Amino acid sequence: MNACPFPIEDYPTVQMAHGGGGRLMGQLIDKIFLTAFGAPPPGQRHDSALLDAGDGPLAFTTDAFVVRPMIFPGGDLGSLAVHGTVNDLAMAGARPLALSAAFILEEGLSMETLWRIASSMADAAADAGVSIVTGDTKVVDRGKGDGIYITTSGVGRITHDRSIAPGEVRDGDVVIVSGDLGRHGMAVMAEREGLEFESDITSDSASVAGPALALLDAGLSIHCLRDLTRGGLTATLNEIASATSLRIEIEERAVPVRDDVSAACAFLGLDPFQVACEGRFAIFLPAAEADRALEVLRAHSVSEGARVVGEVTGESDGRVVLASTTGARRLLDLPAGEQLPRIC
Amino acid sequence: MNACPFPIEDYPTVQMAHGGGGRLMGQLIDKIFLTAFGAPPPGQRHDSALLDAGDGPLAFTTDAFVVRPMIFPGGDLGSLAVHGTVNDLAMAGARPLALSAAFILEEGLSMETLWRIASSMADAAADAGVSIVTGDTKVVDRGKGDGIYITTSGVGRITHDRSIAPGEVRDGDVVIVSGDLGRHGMAVMAEREGLEFESDITSDSASVAGPALALLDAGLSIHCLRDLTRGGLTATLNEIASATSLRIEIEERAVPVRDDVSAACAFLGLDPFQVACEGRFAIFLPAAEADRALEVLRAHSVSEGARVVGEVTGESDGRVVLASTTGARRLLDLPAGEQLPRIC
Repeated sequence: MNACPFPIEDYPTVQMAHGGGGRLMGQLIDKIFLTAFGAPPPGQRHDSALLDAGDGPLAFTTDAFVVRPMIFPGGDLGSLAVHGTVNDLAMAGARPLALSAAFILEEGLSMETLWRIASSMADAAADAGVSIVTGDTKVVDRGKGDGIYITTSGVGRITHDRSIAPGEVRDGDVVIVSGDLGRHGMAVMAEREGLEFESDITSDSASVAGPALALLDAGLSIHCLRDLTRGGLTATLNEIASATSLRIEIEERAVPVRDDVSAACAFLGLDPFQVACEGRFAIFLPAAEADRALEVLRAHSVSEGARVVGEVTGESDGRVVLASTTGARRLLDLPAGEQLPRIC
Repeated sequence: MNACPFPIEDYPTVQMAHGGGGRLMGQLIDKIFLTAFGAPPPGQRHDSALLDAGDGPLAFTTDAFVVRPMIFPGGDLGSLAVHGTVNDLAMAGARPLALSAAFILEEGLSMETLWRIASSMADAAADAGVSIVTGDTKVVDRGKGDGIYITTSGVGRITHDRSIAPGEVRDGDVVIVSGDLGRHGMAVMAEREGLEFESDITSDSASVAGPALALLDAGLSIHCLRDLTRGGLTATLNEIASATSLRIEIEERAVPVRDDVSAACAFLGLDPFQVACEGRFAIFLPAAEADRALEVLRAHSVSEGARVVGEVTGESDGRVVLASTTGARRLLDLPAGEQLPRIC
């Protein structure tokens, strides 16, 4: 991260006028956002970015990011906003072409914080091989926001001819998760509540476009891909079971959860299967292709902990059943809300 | 607008759990957003929408909308969010393909209000011939937002081979505005401040994609298109003058401003040239094509008040000069901030 390029002796904090379309707004955009994300050629600035998209279908996605605190072990609001949108595109089997970023800034926000978040977005985008090509900034009155909210949208190119969707999941598919669960939620929770766990839990926030697209490039019969964000593994499995009216059976001991995450969840009375991840996804594909899929996933560091955790069965009750470590079987049901609000 | 489809006896207001990825969030999405915007086929729900985009370059844009009050004479936050994004695409000469909508909702927001805004978005999108194909919802704690903030993004297909950008504007171009200025800002201001003007001023919020694309379809040599939003005509002209280092001369008496808007601006000490419009745009093209452009514009009701208001001259000082009704000439300079915050 470079030093904040804004002349903070003049404006150490965001003013209402920074959202006003005048000179101060021009300065904010030039000095913070275009410095972080790169500037278009002179005379080519426009509210729309132009994309050279080739042909074929596109994927299009959007997400608002409101996580608090803005900075947490293993990431921050900026990197999270980029990873979340890149991952949504990858879950559609789309190669990210471009991102947009819209900022809702609260009057009085520190320019240093804004620069840190923008820099982190730029770094995360560079790591994921995608550019932030267009944006918008609004400033709201003090007390009508919470520092920074970011909405990122993304456009990606579909480079395969598979249909990847919940409705494609079949009896006999296995369920693979790409790595250990629950770290993002617990890292944010620990930071927010000032908790000290025995070991350091860092967020799993990361782009998973690499392994997701590699699965498709390898010609595997991927039926569905889902990032395990709000509601965690439990929400994803219930969505698929409900969409297909098939039963999904999960083996609790097969699901990777780190001991420190498990202990922190137990301490707080949380279920790690419901805690949001931001760099983990589930893959549904025929059992016969599971070994090849694991091989592809484990070649990427972000998914080297991939495991088969369950299977889709022919029972048509649309339920998710967990076989626990004690041998008991129970329904894995959808929570009404969320255990941990504002962690993504 | 239909009645709010949410079972408001259960949840008359937004709860934190409506943002949590669980059952309540599913209900919110089903009953409010998918009812307003249309649902994807069963089993095809995904965080990304798939677009059949054909080939050639794309335009991609995003805007956050924070206007207060949310409902004002002639429009509301929802229609404004759709018009703003459709217009940004049109200003790139792009035919809108699809919109996304991300909502940041404050805990305690009335479901009736949310439904009204979502319905208005759906109506505005239908009028503009575009669909809202993907979205996201986050709920923030009471006191950390302001009811509803909406970020809309849009993807459009460029169907012409012109370069339309500030840097394309040339000595000898005329400046056309598509209609009377200042109504959006004054309508919002009057509602917010509880002012009663002698006549009713309604917002100009509207899609201008129709006339903008018709200019291109007519084969006119459009050099630049700009919607006159934050900072109004003054900000747009200064941007073009600065990008080209050419002088722009404007004839004050040629610029259409309604008498009631003019009087309201005078009463409040505001300059109508700096007040945001949300359904007005400026066109830069060679003087020889001005009459044909006016003919095309006046065939659309949203731009039937189009007028030539000035010209680009060979002087290379990058300034905007206004010839006033009294014959005096003065610089039309960029304001530092904005006269009226949070009107778009």
